[in-house]
Amino acid sequence: MSKLPNISTSIFTVMSKMAAEYNAINLSQGFPNFPVDERLTDIVTKLAKENVHQYTPMSGFPPLLSKITLLIKNSYQRTIQPETELLITAGATQAIFTTITALVKSNDDVIILDPSYDCYEAPVLLCNANPVRVALNDDYTPYWEIIEKACTSKTKMIIINNPHNPTGKILTEPDFEALEILLDKYPDIVLLSDEVYEYITFEEKHISAHTREKLLNRCVMVSSFGKSFHVTGWKIGYLVAPEYLMREIKKVHQFLVFSVNSICQVAISEYLDIVSISEIRKLYQEKRDYFKLLLKDSRFKLMPCEGTYFQVVSYAAISNENDVDFCKRLIMEYGVAAIPISTFYADGKDLKLIRFCFAKDNITLEEAAKRLCAI
Amino acid sequence: MSKLPNISTSIFTVMSKMAAEYNAINLSQGFPNFPVDERLTDIVTKLAKENVHQYTPMSGFPPLLSKITLLIKNSYQRTIQPETELLITAGATQAIFTTITALVKSNDDVIILDPSYDCYEAPVLLCNANPVRVALNDDYTPYWEIIEKACTSKTKMIIINNPHNPTGKILTEPDFEALEILLDKYPDIVLLSDEVYEYITFEEKHISAHTREKLLNRCVMVSSFGKSFHVTGWKIGYLVAPEYLMREIKKVHQFLVFSVNSICQVAISEYLDIVSISEIRKLYQEKRDYFKLLLKDSRFKLMPCEGTYFQVVSYAAISNENDVDFCKRLIMEYGVAAIPISTFYADGKDLKLIRFCFAKDNITLEEAAKRLCAI
Ligand SMILES: CSCCC(=O)C(=O)O
Ligand SMILES: CSCCC(=O)C(=O)O
Repeated sequence: MSKLPNISTSIFTVMSKMAAEYNAINLSQGFPNFPVDERLTDIVTKLAKENVHQYTPMSGFPPLLSKITLLIKNSYQRTIQPETELLITAGATQAIFTTITALVKSNDDVIILDPSYDCYEAPVLLCNANPVRVALNDDYTPYWEIIEKACTSKTKMIIINNPHNPTGKILTEPDFEALEILLDKYPDIVLLSDEVYEYITFEEKHISAHTREKLLNRCVMVSSFGKSFHVTGWKIGYLVAPEYLMREIKKVHQFLVFSVNSICQVAISEYLDIVSISEIRKLYQEKRDYFKLLLKDSRFKLMPCEGTYFQVVSYAAISNENDVDFCKRLIMEYGVAAIPISTFYADGKDLKLIRFCFAKDNITLEEAAKRLCAI
Repeated sequence: MSKLPNISTSIFTVMSKMAAEYNAINLSQGFPNFPVDERLTDIVTKLAKENVHQYTPMSGFPPLLSKITLLIKNSYQRTIQPETELLITAGATQAIFTTITALVKSNDDVIILDPSYDCYEAPVLLCNANPVRVALNDDYTPYWEIIEKACTSKTKMIIINNPHNPTGKILTEPDFEALEILLDKYPDIVLLSDEVYEYITFEEKHISAHTREKLLNRCVMVSSFGKSFHVTGWKIGYLVAPEYLMREIKKVHQFLVFSVNSICQVAISEYLDIVSISEIRKLYQEKRDYFKLLLKDSRFKLMPCEGTYFQVVSYAAISNENDVDFCKRLIMEYGVAAIPISTFYADGKDLKLIRFCFAKDNITLEEAAKRLCAI
């Protein structure tokens, strides 16, 4: 008997594979198709000949830990202790899996919002714990009163994702105030905050959970350089946690992966000296606005996108098919791959919504939009 | 309460850190200090400017999967199916953690030989399963009759490590015959074979578990390019498993890490076209022999080393201290770091043995030996 009987191949793998088979433009799985910053690849070129090919320490390459500490200081005016509150991981996925494995026990409840990115449930199940799904509001804001109703003495963790994949929603000051009041009543709940798109937000400023006075002592925040620096293949993420949680997380980390790719850690560490993090926001805001403009005259209805590099659209005016079938037809007949939003719901709710990734060069966005406007 | 109450910082981290503090020659943690093959770093230099920075497919970069299939064919005359029987992992540690997490359930027994490398026990405990320690013979060969006595209907897995870290022992044809007879009686036991040093064996030829007709259908074999190509920091490993086990392993892998560092996967894939795997054996055999020669007139007694890049020595003629204290004094007073063998035993058995890593350039080995001969 499988330990994960209901889990099949991730939708990102399925759609990227199908896009390749049909030679479609791949706006499904989230990754950029434009070149990486030359300054970053120049660093890799230089490092290839240096002594950067053996194990880094278990928690990460020490200069990278310092630079992230500085980045956090500059971005959020929060000072963390790099030796005890910071860990480099093989991407955000490993950070999330490791955190859940370290902190969640048999029979614990873990609250996962619905819809959600697909990597939270499996580690909870592998801990013999219970994923408790709580629906977001229709506008994708968390309904804090309903979340509170789901909390019991069995609740070990609440997982939030901010900015939210796939909906592009970000949490506001009132959201955090409501969350803080809720958590005040449950001193043992850990907040796992997946913020891999923390530097990709637009009109509203991103609020990072671990910078909140009332949350920092129970919050594990996860981020990813793959997203921020367009190097999704490098698999370099990190997590910030208070020392008493980090101790447990590191125990698992050292036997789960021990350490993380050295040359890419060193490269990011040097790149952090010269990159301006605000460039990222500007780049993706322009891409979002351009993609919206290109789709203006299409029959797709565009949903708001406050952050991430994903645009959710409704195809209700075009077809009555379920979203998985529509995505397949979109690849086969129109040559564009997207992700069906139903796959982010525990019950596969079909709202006639699909997600496009706009982290693509303009020619790709233009050609995709041309095809989509022809539908 | 911690899920891993008895686990502390790995001995490799402890000793490497102490070596750095005291500016000692670090023969503790296993990693080479000589330059990586120029042909491999040239490939990295070239790749930095290519399109190798986004996610590879979940199972690995497809050309790398093909090249490993060919490597296995050439090394062992076994043909595997790269799509269904091969997985690239973030080092062997992740391969082992993922395999155990995917296959071992609550209350299962997992047989771990004693002494053992330190990464097997934590994932077993995290599955709420029972590590069952079975002592190796005094010459470090497995005592198959005693292992068989430890097998019950609860036994889910036997973990072997061949070549064996820390003892350098390799399994022989009679070992495999005994193992096969044993496993014949227990059709449900999975064999997890950690073979990260498969290409570092000396007088005897390495026998890989997954190439045995009678084992391949229940064997998960784990290997590591970090060891074979002196790039321990890259964290590129792989595992070979029959499809019905691989299906479960991939379910966990896709939510544990999703995919593995792309540029280093591509680099290894190209390097496999030009490297001759037998160079590795030759290099380390020379190092072993040289290190043995250098220590000939010391008061340490050298144990046999059939594989790996580790030399175990007895210091019984020098001191009566326990091996942890002796290793600390060796760093502080003599400027050489080693690993105490007691840390590989579940009960910390102290046999006055310590382990040196000889994957070092000759100058380092000479200077270390000079210091060791002065004791
Ligand atoms: C790990 S593949 C999925 C990439 C991604 O974050 C997304 O497409 O949502
Ligand atoms: C993962 S650090 C330990 C390296 C190693 O394999 C060893 O020293 O035995």
